[in-house]
Amino acid sequence: MAIITLTTDFGMRDGYVGAMKGVLERQVDRVRIVDIAHDIPPGDIAHAAWVIATAAKEFPDETVHLVVVDPGVGGDRQAVAVRASSSWFVGPDNGVFDHVLGTRRAGWALSRPRLDAAIGAMRSPFSATFHGRDLFAPAAAWLANGKDIKQLAELTELRGSLPWGPRASRQGRIVHVDRFGNVITDLPRSEAGSAVTVAGHTLPLATTYSDVEPGQLLAYIGSSETVEIAVRDGRADTRIPCERGTLVVPAGEPASPYR
Amino acid sequence: MAIITLTTDFGMRDGYVGAMKGVLERQVDRVRIVDIAHDIPPGDIAHAAWVIATAAKEFPDETVHLVVVDPGVGGDRQAVAVRASSSWFVGPDNGVFDHVLGTRRAGWALSRPRLDAAIGAMRSPFSATFHGRDLFAPAAAWLANGKDIKQLAELTELRGSLPWGPRASRQGRIVHVDRFGNVITDLPRSEAGSAVTVAGHTLPLATTYSDVEPGQLLAYIGSSETVEIAVRDGRADTRIPCERGTLVVPAGEPASPYR
Amino acid sequence: MAIITLTTDFGMRDGYVGAMKGVLERQVDRVRIVDIAHDIPPGDIAHAAWVIATAAKEFPDETVHLVVVDPGVGGDRQAVAVRASSSWFVGPDNGVFDHVLGTRRAGWALSRPRLDAAIGAMRSPFSATFHGRDLFAPAAAWLANGKDIKQLAELTELRGSLPWGPRASRQGRIVHVDRFGNVITDLPRSEAGSAVTVAGHTLPLATTYSDVEPGQLLAYIGSSETVEIAVRDGRADTRIPCERGTLVVPAGEPASPYR
Repeated sequence: MAIITLTTDFGMRDGYVGAMKGVLERQVDRVRIVDIAHDIPPGDIAHAAWVIATAAKEFPDETVHLVVVDPGVGGDRQAVAVRASSSWFVGPDNGVFDHVLGTRRAGWALSRPRLDAAIGAMRSPFSATFHGRDLFAPAAAWLANGKDIKQLAELTELRGSLPWGPRASRQGRIVHVDRFGNVITDLPRSEAGSAVTVAGHTLPLATTYSDVEPGQLLAYIGSSETVEIAVRDGRADTRIPCERGTLVVPAGEPASPYR
Repeated sequence: MAIITLTTDFGMRDGYVGAMKGVLERQVDRVRIVDIAHDIPPGDIAHAAWVIATAAKEFPDETVHLVVVDPGVGGDRQAVAVRASSSWFVGPDNGVFDHVLGTRRAGWALSRPRLDAAIGAMRSPFSATFHGRDLFAPAAAWLANGKDIKQLAELTELRGSLPWGPRASRQGRIVHVDRFGNVITDLPRSEAGSAVTVAGHTLPLATTYSDVEPGQLLAYIGSSETVEIAVRDGRADTRIPCERGTLVVPAGEPASPYR
Repeated sequence: MAIITLTTDFGMRDGYVGAMKGVLERQVDRVRIVDIAHDIPPGDIAHAAWVIATAAKEFPDETVHLVVVDPGVGGDRQAVAVRASSSWFVGPDNGVFDHVLGTRRAGWALSRPRLDAAIGAMRSPFSATFHGRDLFAPAAAWLANGKDIKQLAELTELRGSLPWGPRASRQGRIVHVDRFGNVITDLPRSEAGSAVTVAGHTLPLATTYSDVEPGQLLAYIGSSETVEIAVRDGRADTRIPCERGTLVVPAGEPASPYR
C-alpha cells in the first residue's frame, strides 16, 4: 500500500487539506495518507523545509511526500518532483526541498500539458491558485501508483533556494524554532566540539534538559543530530535572538560575518 | 474500503475527535477515516458549511461525510443524513449542509429509538451533549457499512439554514474567509463578468496573485470557481469589511439592499 | 490490522508527529495510525491524562495508545507500557495514565538495552530528547505487531502521578477545561445527587445547554458520565475559577479543605 504524506500551511480550518485528500483517495488505488504538519506558518518556506527533512527520513522507501507551502502559486516558479533518499518529494521549486537535497539541484519539472494528457480524470478547469489540489496531488498520486515520472515531467535544474544557502564547514545556522521555543541549528554533532557560540552566548554541550537547572539555557545535540539551544522548562527563543540564518560556531572559532 | 471524513469544531486538544474515531473503528468493518478540518471556529456553522462543500466534491462517490458543528446539541434541532453528489452527509440540521444541497430541503431525520434498535452495540447511556459520538458517528458507521438508511431514519424536510439564504441571480455573498485572509464569495465565474464590486471596491478580475503588485487588492476566480478577493503577499480580510453575507455584484450592477 | 493512536503536545507545525508516524509505518506490518490530539498544551500532563482516558474507552480492544507529553524526557522518569481495558498504553511514567488506571500502579518499565536487542532496525544514535521517536514509537510498534512485552520491559511500580491524587468518595475535582470553556470534573453521576457546589456556586443538574437561558451557568452530566459546568452559548472557564484540582461536591455536603 502506497504512503503519501502531507505537509502544508493550509491549517485545519479550511477545506484545502480535505480537497487534496479527496483527490488522492480518488486517484490512487491503495493509499495511506499521513498528515505530517498543516500548521506551518502561512508562506513560511524555510519552516516547511526543516519539517519535511526531519520527518521524511523516518519513512519507508518509496514514500511520496507532498509539500505545499507555495506563496508563489500561479506565478513563474516551477512545480517539481525531486528524488532523495529513495523517496519522492512533490511541491513548488522555492527552496522547500533544500534540506532534503543538500547541494543537489536536479529535479523534474511538472508540466501541466503532460499531466492533462496522462491523467484523463484530471479536473477541469484547472485553478491558478490551488496547485496543491490540481497539480501536486495528481502528480503525487501518479508516483504513488508506481508510474513513470518521465510521462509527467522533464529534467530540470532547481532555481529556488532558502535565503541562507549551503552551509560552510564548521559553521551552522539557526534553521528552525519549534513549538516549545527550542532553537534548532544545522551544525552537526561531528563539527560541534564540546561547546558552541551563538548570538553572543557560549554554551557547553549538555546531554538533555535535566543536566541544567530549570530556567537555564543549554546547548545539546538534538534529535536531528545537530546542535539545539533550549531552556529547561522554558523557551529559548525569547532568551536569545532567534532569527533564522544566525550563525552558530564551535566555541573559540570566529563567527565570520556570514549575515 | 469505506471512507468516512470528519469535519468538526472540536480542535485537536481534547478527546472528542478521538472518541468519534474510536466509535468508527469499532463499528465499521473496513474503514479509512479522513480528517478534513477540526479547527472550525467553535459553533461557526457557516464556516463549516463552506469547508465541507469545497472538500467533499473531490472525494469518491459513496464517501460518508460526518460534520459536527452543533451548538444546538441536545435541543430540538433535527439530526439528519442527507444525500448529495452520490455521497452521504451526516450531522445536525442547522444549515451546515446548505452549500452541499443548494435549494434542496429533503433529508433523513435520524431517530434515536431506531438507532438503538438497529445497532445493538450502541453505547448506553446516551449523552445529551455529545451526539457526535453517540448519534452521528454510529449513523455514519451504519451508512459506511452499506446498510439501509430507512432502518435508521425517516424522510424529513430540513429546517435549519444559513442566515443569508439562497443566492439571487447575478449576486453573490461573502461566504468564507480562509486562513490566509482571502475573502471568498459564492458568485460563480459564469455570472461575474470582467470586474466585481464588493463593499465599495470595484476590482477587475485577475488570474492569480502575481498579476498585481505585492500589497495590492485583487479579485480572481478561486479554486471553487467563484469570485475571491485577496491581497498579494497579504490579507484581504483586514482591507475590506469581510462580514459574511456582504453582497458582491458584477461591476456596474446595482447592489440591491440585500442585507 | 493493528490500530495505534497518537496523543501528543507536539502540535501540527513541526516534524515530530511525522517522525513518529514514519517509525510506525516502518516498523509495523499492517497498521492504522489514528490521531487523537496533538494540540495538548506543551508539557500539560494532566490535560493529556484526561484526553486519553475519554478517547481510549471508545476504541476496540488491543488498540495501542501512544501518549507523548513528556517534559521530563531524558531525565530519570521511567518509560512505561501499561495495560488497561484490554488495550496498551505507552508513554512516560509521569501521571499521564492516572485516569486510565485508576488506583492501579503496575506497569512495564521499557528498557533501552532490551529494545536495542529486540529491534534490530532501531535507529542509532538514540536521542536523549525525543523518546517519542526512539523509544515509545518502537515499543508501540512492537506491541502492535502482537509481540511479547516481556522481551522489551520488566514489571515495575509506577512512580509518577497527577498532583491531586485519587478521588475521595462523594468529592470530585475539576480535571479538565475543554476548547469550548466547559469545565469538566471527575464527580460521577452516581455520586452527584441533584445539585453540586463548586467554587462557591451551587447549581442544579440540568440535562443539556438548552435547559437554561443563553449566557447562564449550568451543571449537567457530561459525555464522560461526570459532572460538567458550562455556560449556554458561552464559556464557563471565565465565569468560575477553573483551576484544576478545585473540589466539586454534591450540594449540601461540606467541601473539605482538600486543597
